[in-house]
Amino acid sequence: MSLIVVGSMAFDEIETPFGKSGKIIGGAATYIAWTASNFVKPVQQVSVVGGDFPEAELKALAERGVQLEGVQVKQDQKSFFWAGKYHMDMNNRDTLVTELNVLGDFEPVVPASYQDAEFLMLGNLAPAVQKSVISQMKKRPKLIAMDTMNFWMEVALDDLKEVLKMVDVLLINDAEARQLSGEYSLVRAANKIFEMGPKYLIIKKGEHGALLFHENHVFFAPALPLEDVYDPTGAGDTFAGGFIGHIARTKDISFENMKTAIIIGSAMASYCVEKFGTDRLKEITEEDIENRIRQFIDLVHFDIDLI
Amino acid sequence: MSLIVVGSMAFDEIETPFGKSGKIIGGAATYIAWTASNFVKPVQQVSVVGGDFPEAELKALAERGVQLEGVQVKQDQKSFFWAGKYHMDMNNRDTLVTELNVLGDFEPVVPASYQDAEFLMLGNLAPAVQKSVISQMKKRPKLIAMDTMNFWMEVALDDLKEVLKMVDVLLINDAEARQLSGEYSLVRAANKIFEMGPKYLIIKKGEHGALLFHENHVFFAPALPLEDVYDPTGAGDTFAGGFIGHIARTKDISFENMKTAIIIGSAMASYCVEKFGTDRLKEITEEDIENRIRQFIDLVHFDIDLI
Repeated sequence: MSLIVVGSMAFDEIETPFGKSGKIIGGAATYIAWTASNFVKPVQQVSVVGGDFPEAELKALAERGVQLEGVQVKQDQKSFFWAGKYHMDMNNRDTLVTELNVLGDFEPVVPASYQDAEFLMLGNLAPAVQKSVISQMKKRPKLIAMDTMNFWMEVALDDLKEVLKMVDVLLINDAEARQLSGEYSLVRAANKIFEMGPKYLIIKKGEHGALLFHENHVFFAPALPLEDVYDPTGAGDTFAGGFIGHIARTKDISFENMKTAIIIGSAMASYCVEKFGTDRLKEITEEDIENRIRQFIDLVHFDIDLI
Repeated sequence: MSLIVVGSMAFDEIETPFGKSGKIIGGAATYIAWTASNFVKPVQQVSVVGGDFPEAELKALAERGVQLEGVQVKQDQKSFFWAGKYHMDMNNRDTLVTELNVLGDFEPVVPASYQDAEFLMLGNLAPAVQKSVISQMKKRPKLIAMDTMNFWMEVALDDLKEVLKMVDVLLINDAEARQLSGEYSLVRAANKIFEMGPKYLIIKKGEHGALLFHENHVFFAPALPLEDVYDPTGAGDTFAGGFIGHIARTKDISFENMKTAIIIGSAMASYCVEKFGTDRLKEITEEDIENRIRQFIDLVHFDIDLI
């Protein structure tokens, strides 16, 4: 019941109203792997890093059940680097530095040992890279989920549209759903996006929760109201990791089970933002996860007698 | 089991991306009364209108079970008038015209026949007016809820703080909660606001739903994702009307029942925005309300087996 995770493994440097992170480990696939490995093993990673990427980080992932055969290490190059600054509302951030480095000419290779994977999570990356991974799979996985971002809608829309035809689940934020569909209403946006390929659309709204659309059904999962959001970096990737981790663990791709997966994704994301980078994700236990899921149940549970 | 509703009854002129309303009936107490009267009768209205306010509107409310003895009609003056324009995102609006007219020197009078009311809903108005109504009650109602807005925080903060000490439930939006508390985190904002008097805080987030805080408990109700939000004017008042209407009907002021009340308020608000002004509220039936509440149940219901 393995899961392939594709995405960046990188360095980040983050500034929030609470402090500065210094240079820390980041990248979509890093967050997804740390999160999904709570639920499913092995996680089969596809990524690329430079010679500067710490051995210890790779070792920690391997100990966690993350297979790294698909992670290319380019000794003479540098890892992808992103620096950004968040403002008080934490929903907006300025990108200060983007250095593609090894990501610039990344050609993913899916190892033979990954070919039996039933689930495929495409983290945010160039659509052409995402497509290459799907094309390398000899047997189509049971479920393919992908993340993307506004940048690819601007510079690689044709590639993006091709990948959209090949996936089952698209995860994007509300602004991206509006940009991709040209519709302000998220209900209308979902219907337009279904015409592009995906059968399931998850719209992430940060502190305002997440929506799951499928055919004419909709499900809403709140975000946990937190005293402090320390660093939102990676929250969306962590959400994706919890979502796909639960799906891969249960092997159940029904709409009902996706609701559960979204609650689990939301619970994991609520931990992610409590510390810089992956720090909190590395600490939490199974008990922590269960407790947080209980808080989500309390947050939305109500009994109602119809009038 | 009567309910007193205090607030404006007025004229509005609204422009949205979908069209222009022309001059229509509005006002916080109008929306609250139309909504709450689905759940509880009589609704005992306290307001003021000018000689220009249509008889037919007052008659329609009376036929609905809304008592108007506390509504002053100042024949030689004009009713409150507000004109505003919404942009595409419907969360922001520009005020084009505000004419206080009869509201400028409004001195509310609570009729003797209202003195047994068990529930009091103070719609958005000058805090001094809200305070005057509370002071006129010979027996304190079982529950006092109030709405307010950023304007009063700017021009009448001392008065507002006095009223806050006298009420049980405060309903405000997220920006107002932040402004009143000086805290960005809504969890921290709630704790600061509890120190000002209210035991319950409802934070309205428009299309992002609503939060109910009480002691260290929190409950979240989503907004229904709609194809189109036609006119958001009065949605917050309609929410308040559904909330207090359910509480007054059940006479149950527990936290559990307030959760239900918030779902009902959200359901009513989702109808309000489907047409200009109170048009949709005047049409809907008990069956419509039940159907909408069922949609809210579907929207958030999930089953989860802890790991």
